[in-house]
Amino acid sequence: MENKKPVSIIKIGGNIIDNPTELKQFLSHFAAIEGHKILVHGGGKSATKMAESIGLVPQMIDGRRITDAAMLDVVVMIYAGQINKNIVAQLQANSTNAMGFSGADGNLIQSNKRNHPTINYGFVGDVKKVNTQLLETLLLNEIVPVFCAITHDGKGQLLNTNADTIASELAIALATFFDVTLNYCFEKPGVLYDAEDDSSVIENINQELYSKLKAEKAIHSGMIPKLDNCFNSLSKGVQKIKIGHHRMLHNASEICTTIKL
Amino acid sequence: MENKKPVSIIKIGGNIIDNPTELKQFLSHFAAIEGHKILVHGGGKSATKMAESIGLVPQMIDGRRITDAAMLDVVVMIYAGQINKNIVAQLQANSTNAMGFSGADGNLIQSNKRNHPTINYGFVGDVKKVNTQLLETLLLNEIVPVFCAITHDGKGQLLNTNADTIASELAIALATFFDVTLNYCFEKPGVLYDAEDDSSVIENINQELYSKLKAEKAIHSGMIPKLDNCFNSLSKGVQKIKIGHHRMLHNASEICTTIKL
Repeated sequence: MENKKPVSIIKIGGNIIDNPTELKQFLSHFAAIEGHKILVHGGGKSATKMAESIGLVPQMIDGRRITDAAMLDVVVMIYAGQINKNIVAQLQANSTNAMGFSGADGNLIQSNKRNHPTINYGFVGDVKKVNTQLLETLLLNEIVPVFCAITHDGKGQLLNTNADTIASELAIALATFFDVTLNYCFEKPGVLYDAEDDSSVIENINQELYSKLKAEKAIHSGMIPKLDNCFNSLSKGVQKIKIGHHRMLHNASEICTTIKL
Repeated sequence: MENKKPVSIIKIGGNIIDNPTELKQFLSHFAAIEGHKILVHGGGKSATKMAESIGLVPQMIDGRRITDAAMLDVVVMIYAGQINKNIVAQLQANSTNAMGFSGADGNLIQSNKRNHPTINYGFVGDVKKVNTQLLETLLLNEIVPVFCAITHDGKGQLLNTNADTIASELAIALATFFDVTLNYCFEKPGVLYDAEDDSSVIENINQELYSKLKAEKAIHSGMIPKLDNCFNSLSKGVQKIKIGHHRMLHNASEICTTIKL
């Protein structure tokens, strides 16, 4: 265990991607992180904007985008094209040898098209397999992978995939060979006791406290699948998970939530 | 010289990209090519279509697209997103470990923004440097690189770049370590004596014949910069260049034009 090299996986969402100033600042801080690292980015609002501008009407069920063929085209263009390549170019300008990927590239992340008994999600994929060997080769060649939330089914079909899940599946896959810290950056400073009060960050959560907080209903409903997902990753070998504002990545004294088993 | 490994670089353009049936057929033949190989693809008509559908008016000067900021966004989305990722996914389905790149990825192709005395081309790049070492590492790891015609300036700016030029610059860069064959696939079966007669393919062109054909004005004006570019690549170490229909890649008896010094 002691001989494993550390790797940081950082997931960012719309609050950073949709704000060019915030993104620029984040990327300069990301570039400064030492050692092996991977960036996973969501999509932000630009896919919805583009879809509207070409006359598509975005459909959502339970907060999830229904991805028909036309919408898949849009998310592939925006996530794998516009957002991914601009992030990569900016990281290169920050002396970071970034390389942008969808899951199809190098067969890095293969998914199964979601098969739901009642909802047809369309071209949505659930992660099946990470090409850990190639990912390790890239990291050991000092490449910084930048993943967008697009995967493929191995049969020629691209699939829209949740970015949080991509980050956790990469973390789990790499945990065999690396000491993995997974960082979820969002608009809040961490997991809050009181969703309305940003100063109520719960700084450390373990399985015991999590059970207690759920029983007390102190944890917000939307946070439950996120935290369930975190404990699942930890049970599969991920060392540590941090949730908070991206300031936590470069400022060690920044308050955030650290999750361990 | 004898110990160099062979590598095939294949450039395809709009005639293949714009036709899904043709593209599918091409990709299955490309997948069957043995040994190291690289695919370079142009853009086809979909960038123009997308630009029109969001209200941009494409500007051309001397057959070249003027790339303002809005048009750059479109070509990045279409070339690096939609086209590149669909090609990669289809190659994966053909058991080919393809990985899609812009020049920003891994700093594989760095360009200078074009500085023309009278025409402002906008965000157009002329190739400055290929990251040969990383490209070689990828090839030796059995990766099949798929390049779109987007590069970067190393300062965070993506740049629209001619796909023919990308193919020839990759060929020149790799010629030090590999025995490089460069293949330009287009709608014609080769370089023609008579532009109107597809059966008039000139099967072999060397520098001497090329000078003679130019003097006779037997070679079409648009073909001159293409062939000048070919002889430049050959003079810089590229072994062989073939021009013709993509059938030449899998059918050894297919008529095409072979260019050697």
